[in-house]
Amino acid sequence: MKTYLDCYSCFVRQALEASRMAGADTEQQRSILLRVFRILEGLDPESTPPEIADSVHRIIRQEIHGGDPYRAAKDAATAQALALCPRLRELMDDADDPLDMAIRLSIAGNIIDFAPSIKFDLWDTVQRVCTQPYAANDQQSFRRQLEHVNRILFLADNAGETVFDRFLIELIDTPVLYAVKGGPVLNDATVEDAVAAGVDRVAAIVSTGSDAPGTIIDHCSQEFRQLYDNAEMIIAKGQANYETLSKEGSRVFFLLQIKCPIIAQDIGFPTGSIVLRQGRNEQ
Amino acid sequence: MKTYLDCYSCFVRQALEASRMAGADTEQQRSILLRVFRILEGLDPESTPPEIADSVHRIIRQEIHGGDPYRAAKDAATAQALALCPRLRELMDDADDPLDMAIRLSIAGNIIDFAPSIKFDLWDTVQRVCTQPYAANDQQSFRRQLEHVNRILFLADNAGETVFDRFLIELIDTPVLYAVKGGPVLNDATVEDAVAAGVDRVAAIVSTGSDAPGTIIDHCSQEFRQLYDNAEMIIAKGQANYETLSKEGSRVFFLLQIKCPIIAQDIGFPTGSIVLRQGRNEQ
Repeated sequence: MKTYLDCYSCFVRQALEASRMAGADTEQQRSILLRVFRILEGLDPESTPPEIADSVHRIIRQEIHGGDPYRAAKDAATAQALALCPRLRELMDDADDPLDMAIRLSIAGNIIDFAPSIKFDLWDTVQRVCTQPYAANDQQSFRRQLEHVNRILFLADNAGETVFDRFLIELIDTPVLYAVKGGPVLNDATVEDAVAAGVDRVAAIVSTGSDAPGTIIDHCSQEFRQLYDNAEMIIAKGQANYETLSKEGSRVFFLLQIKCPIIAQDIGFPTGSIVLRQGRNEQ
Repeated sequence: MKTYLDCYSCFVRQALEASRMAGADTEQQRSILLRVFRILEGLDPESTPPEIADSVHRIIRQEIHGGDPYRAAKDAATAQALALCPRLRELMDDADDPLDMAIRLSIAGNIIDFAPSIKFDLWDTVQRVCTQPYAANDQQSFRRQLEHVNRILFLADNAGETVFDRFLIELIDTPVLYAVKGGPVLNDATVEDAVAAGVDRVAAIVSTGSDAPGTIIDHCSQEFRQLYDNAEMIIAKGQANYETLSKEGSRVFFLLQIKCPIIAQDIGFPTGSIVLRQGRNEQ
């Protein structure tokens, strides 16, 4: 998905929020915003939003001299999600259709996304998503592919959301490669966050080798690119993966909540929608 | 009130909305946003938000070669407000305290403000504001001053809101000078909008001589500055007048709804609040 002019104000807001989360003082915050303006001035019109977000968050990490601005927030999100596990387990046990419930929980966890907003109510979201009709539901094709592939590449999104993904991975018989970011960006999950969620007990964790949001293939390590190229089936979580991989064909299944009005417009469903959508082959 | 870093993303969003309302094509919209970045890069930290908004909207008018981008939207707002008049008149007739009701209606009309959002529900707002407790209510002092002054300078805000102000002006025995913008900016009322609302039948309409939002005294005509300097009592409507005149002393009474989270923080009341507040003398 290309970057719309509507995204500009959102990058500026996001940069300020992230600067503050990183502990930047007012002068640093202002300096970061001015550098963001320069990025937007020189923007290649074909860039996807996560490519711009990548540059924005790189600036913030530079200004505050490295580290992970979102470490505490990510740990808190994982702890909050882990605390819900007994209740999530109950939902799984009581489900008439466990696979559908596991998909819904994985989508529910996608509310933990600091790009559109740093505020969310986790349990409220779970309750909503458990019964909400899908805006797109390619579940039939999803189930069919699950039965035929030997391995699944699962592109993780955010820390804490990782806890919710476990239920889906546990239910699937096929081995899963769980791909996380190679370094800190926003509240995206890294190896540390996947391990804290216990994903290492149910899947092999791999790094994309990139610290950009979403999955920008050109930024990933050669090792990951090979895994990606050879993947028969890909589960891609969240908005940024949709933005970067929306034209990557029918082996990709997007699981996400629509939280951004511009993505809503691009995908054709209102914000608040829950989506399980199979990718289309580029026209 | 100074411009906060939080205002930056808001200016970018507002510039895009205004560009589109002005009929700018995508290339013009992008060119406008890049010029807005340059304004923000060179911003004097002491500037108030309406001073920046002034520059932003000037760029838009330049890019689309003059005219009034908000003319149709302003006419629609005035028509919508005029259509409510019989119901507003009924509220006035049934009111135990007509002055309080007239103040509330004038504040209710302040929802017609395209700076924070181009969406609002006028009648819903009237019903809410009719019974909502004031976050600040310096009505006692307001009533006392009303009895002692010979003339009131009323600083108008938006087109359509002008219709709501009439009820307050009609109720006040003291002659009112109703000051509107000297040229188009955002959906702020100009002479044309005040006349369309029938304000000319209840007050003398004067122009500030400035087409900046709020009241930036240095930008106003000498004639208006003299009226302002000599005013015994000033009723200042809306957020932009609060932002530009918050330190102008106790002869100013601010009537507004808080619609912006940054103003909310500055004034100390949550968004959604209704306010009748006497100005403080600068410390």
